[in-house]
Amino acid sequence: MTGEILCVGTELLLGDIVNTNGAFLARELAALGIGVYHQTVVGDNAGRLREAIELALSRSDLLIMTGGLGPTCDDLTKETAAAALGKPLCWNQQAYDRMAAYFARTGREMSENNRKQAMVPQGAAVFQNENGTAPGVGMEEDGKILILLPGPPSEMEPMFLAQVRPYLAGRTGMTFFSRTVHLFGIGESAAEQALRDLMETGINPTIAPYAKTGEVLLRVTAAAPNQQQAEALLAPAVEEIRRRLGRYIYGVDVGTLEKAAVLALGEEGLTLATAESCTGGGVAQRITDVPGASLVFRAGLCTYTNEMKRSLLGVRKDTLDIHGAVSADAALEMARGARAKTGADIGVAVTGVAGPGRSEGKPVGLVFVAVSSAWKEEIKELHLARGSGNERERVRRLAENHALYAVLQIIQKRGSR
Amino acid sequence: MTGEILCVGTELLLGDIVNTNGAFLARELAALGIGVYHQTVVGDNAGRLREAIELALSRSDLLIMTGGLGPTCDDLTKETAAAALGKPLCWNQQAYDRMAAYFARTGREMSENNRKQAMVPQGAAVFQNENGTAPGVGMEEDGKILILLPGPPSEMEPMFLAQVRPYLAGRTGMTFFSRTVHLFGIGESAAEQALRDLMETGINPTIAPYAKTGEVLLRVTAAAPNQQQAEALLAPAVEEIRRRLGRYIYGVDVGTLEKAAVLALGEEGLTLATAESCTGGGVAQRITDVPGASLVFRAGLCTYTNEMKRSLLGVRKDTLDIHGAVSADAALEMARGARAKTGADIGVAVTGVAGPGRSEGKPVGLVFVAVSSAWKEEIKELHLARGSGNERERVRRLAENHALYAVLQIIQKRGSR
Repeated sequence: MTGEILCVGTELLLGDIVNTNGAFLARELAALGIGVYHQTVVGDNAGRLREAIELALSRSDLLIMTGGLGPTCDDLTKETAAAALGKPLCWNQQAYDRMAAYFARTGREMSENNRKQAMVPQGAAVFQNENGTAPGVGMEEDGKILILLPGPPSEMEPMFLAQVRPYLAGRTGMTFFSRTVHLFGIGESAAEQALRDLMETGINPTIAPYAKTGEVLLRVTAAAPNQQQAEALLAPAVEEIRRRLGRYIYGVDVGTLEKAAVLALGEEGLTLATAESCTGGGVAQRITDVPGASLVFRAGLCTYTNEMKRSLLGVRKDTLDIHGAVSADAALEMARGARAKTGADIGVAVTGVAGPGRSEGKPVGLVFVAVSSAWKEEIKELHLARGSGNERERVRRLAENHALYAVLQIIQKRGSR
Repeated sequence: MTGEILCVGTELLLGDIVNTNGAFLARELAALGIGVYHQTVVGDNAGRLREAIELALSRSDLLIMTGGLGPTCDDLTKETAAAALGKPLCWNQQAYDRMAAYFARTGREMSENNRKQAMVPQGAAVFQNENGTAPGVGMEEDGKILILLPGPPSEMEPMFLAQVRPYLAGRTGMTFFSRTVHLFGIGESAAEQALRDLMETGINPTIAPYAKTGEVLLRVTAAAPNQQQAEALLAPAVEEIRRRLGRYIYGVDVGTLEKAAVLALGEEGLTLATAESCTGGGVAQRITDVPGASLVFRAGLCTYTNEMKRSLLGVRKDTLDIHGAVSADAALEMARGARAKTGADIGVAVTGVAGPGRSEGKPVGLVFVAVSSAWKEEIKELHLARGSGNERERVRRLAENHALYAVLQIIQKRGSR
C-alpha cells in the first residue's frame, strides 16, 4: 500500500510553524509498512486543495490530510475532500455530543459555528477528538482511503495512535517492526563503513543509519506478519551490529541519551547532580525531561560566573586564577563540588566556551567534561567547533551529549569493577 | 512572483527528521513578498523527483529545492534538476577549491566521490558553502528560477541568508517589511477580537496573529519599495495595537521572552538567579541560550528534592512540612534563597507539578512562580493543565514563560517606582 500526507494550513505555508505532523505521520505510516513517496503542504484554498487531493488519490492508495477542520469559514478541508469523493456532509450527533462535553469540561463556551464541526461525510468512519473539538474522518471510495485529521499535534497524535492506526492496520497485510541501535563517539560515515556489506545486501531486515547532533542511530527494520517473526529477523542483525560496533553502542531502543542515563541510574539505585557552566543547565533540563527523573536526580547547579563556581560548588580560587574556569581542573572540582553539595553518588560537570566569542583567550568549542564518583573520576577535553560561524547551539548540545554519555560510562565502570 | 519549496530526502519521507527547511524557506520567501502555495517532500528517486520538478515549474515562477546534493550515488537532485532544464553539468574549480579548503580546515579527508559535488549546471550561479561541502546552485530558464540548496540546516540557512536572498531580492520589485508585537497573558482569540476591525480592513499593512505555547505574536507586515516607506506604514499600526493591547505587550521585535529578559536586565544593570523545581533548569537554559547572558545571569539552582531545596536554597523545613514543596510559600522562599545564595538582584523561582502524575496530592499543572528583589516580591499561582493526556512538556514550557515574564514585570516595576 502506498500512502501520501497532505498538510493544510496557511501558517505552514508562511513558515510560522514547523510541520511536525508530516514527520509524525511519515514515521507512523512507515511503521505500518505503508510506503510514503510524497508529502505536500497547501493553504486553505479550495481550488488548490481540490487539485492536491485529486493528484494524491491518482497516485496513492491512501491519503492522510491534517488541518483545516476548524469552525471558521477558512476551514475547507472536510468540505473539499467530501466533494472530491462525491459525498454529502451529514449531521453526526455523537460528534456534537463529544464536542459539547469537551466545551463543558474545559469551561469554555461553544459557539454557533462549532456546529459545522459535527458535520461528517456520508458513510464515513468518525474518529472522536478527546483533546479538542474537530472530529477526524475516514472514508473509502474506489479502493482509495482518505483520512482527515485535526491540525494541532496535541489532538492529531493521540487520535492517530488510538483510532487511526488500528483502522489502517486491518487494511495492510504486512507490518514493519524496528529496533534502534544508539551509538555515541562514532560518525555516521564511519558507522556506515563498518556495516556497508550488511546495508547493501540486507533486504529483510534493512539497516539504515541516521545522524543526530553528535549521535548516530541505526534503524534495523523487519517486515513480518507478527512481532515474534520480526524479532527472529531483527535479533541476529542487532547482534552482528553489536559485534562490530559494540564499544560505541549505549543502548538499543533507549530513545535518548538522557533516557538511557535516567534508566541506568535507576537500575543501579544511584543519584546524580550536575554542575554546568557553558551548557547553562541544559544537562539538568534534559535529565528532568524524562518522567521519573525525580527518583535519581538531586540537583543541578548552573554556575555562570567564577564567583558562583567558588561559592556554590567550592571550586578553589587558585584553580580559577591559574588554570581558568575553562580547564580540566575547574571541571573536576565542579563535579566534585556537585557531589559534595548535594550528596549525590555521581557529579557531572561541564565548563567550556560555547561562543559566539572566545573566553579567557580560549577558543570556541573547547569544553571540559568531568565526572566524579566514589569509585572513579574522569575528565575529557573536547574540541567541538567546526570553525564555521556561530556554533553556540551546536557546541552546547554536543557538550550536553558528552556529559550524559560520561554519566553512562561511569555507571558501567562501577558494574565492571 | 510565486514560489514553491521542494525538499528532497528519504529521511524526511520516513519522518526521521522534521522538515525545518520548509518552514525556514517559507518564512524567508514570505518576507521577500514571494507567494508560496505549495511545499512538497519527495525522496531520492529520479522519476518522482523529475515529476515534482516539472509540476512545480509548470505552476510557479520559482522553485527552491533542498537536499540530495551530497557525494553519494543516492544524491540525485542536481543531476535531475539540470536534466529537467536541459543543462549539462560542468566542472567548477572554485567550488572544488572551497571544498578542499573546508576539508583542510576541519581536518577531514576528502574522498574521490566528493568531486561530484564540484559539478554544477552550465551557466548556473554558484552559492558557495561556508559550512559544508555541497555548493548551492541558481539557474534561470524561460523566466523560471530553480535554486538548489544543501539539506543540512546549518549549511542551508546561512547560504540562503547571505547569498540566495540577495540573488532573489533583485528579481522581485516589492519587498515586505514586518514588525512583530509580542503579547503575554492574553489568548489568540481574545487578541484577534480586540483587533478584528484592523485585521479585516487592513491591506497594507496587514496584521496577523500567531499563537506559540502560551504566547501570542502579532505580525504587522507592509509592502513597500524601501524600509523608510515601510516604516511609515508600520508605525501607526503598531501604535494602534499598543493603544488597545498595551498591557499585554512585552516587546516589539524582541524575539523571545528570554531575549527580552536578558535585554531588560542588561539595560538596568541588574543580575538574575533562578531556582527551579518542576522546570528542571529550563528557565536557566533559556536565559543562557541568549548570547551575552553571562553579563546578567549569576547562577541557576535546580533543586529537585525537598532536601536540596533546604540545603541549597535555605527553604525552611516547616514550610515544606506544612505547605509542601508545591506552594506559594515554598516558591517565595526559593526565590529569596536564589538571591541570598548568589547575591543576584532578582531571584525567580518555579515549583509545581509537571506530571505525568500528581505530586503531594496536588494536580498536574499547578505551578507557583515567585520573584524576589529588594524593591518588590510577587507570587503567582497558575493552573496550566488542560486536562488532556500527558502535558508534562507543555506545563514546563508555560511555567518557564511565566517565570521569564515575572522577571520582565519586576524590572518594569523598579523603573516605575
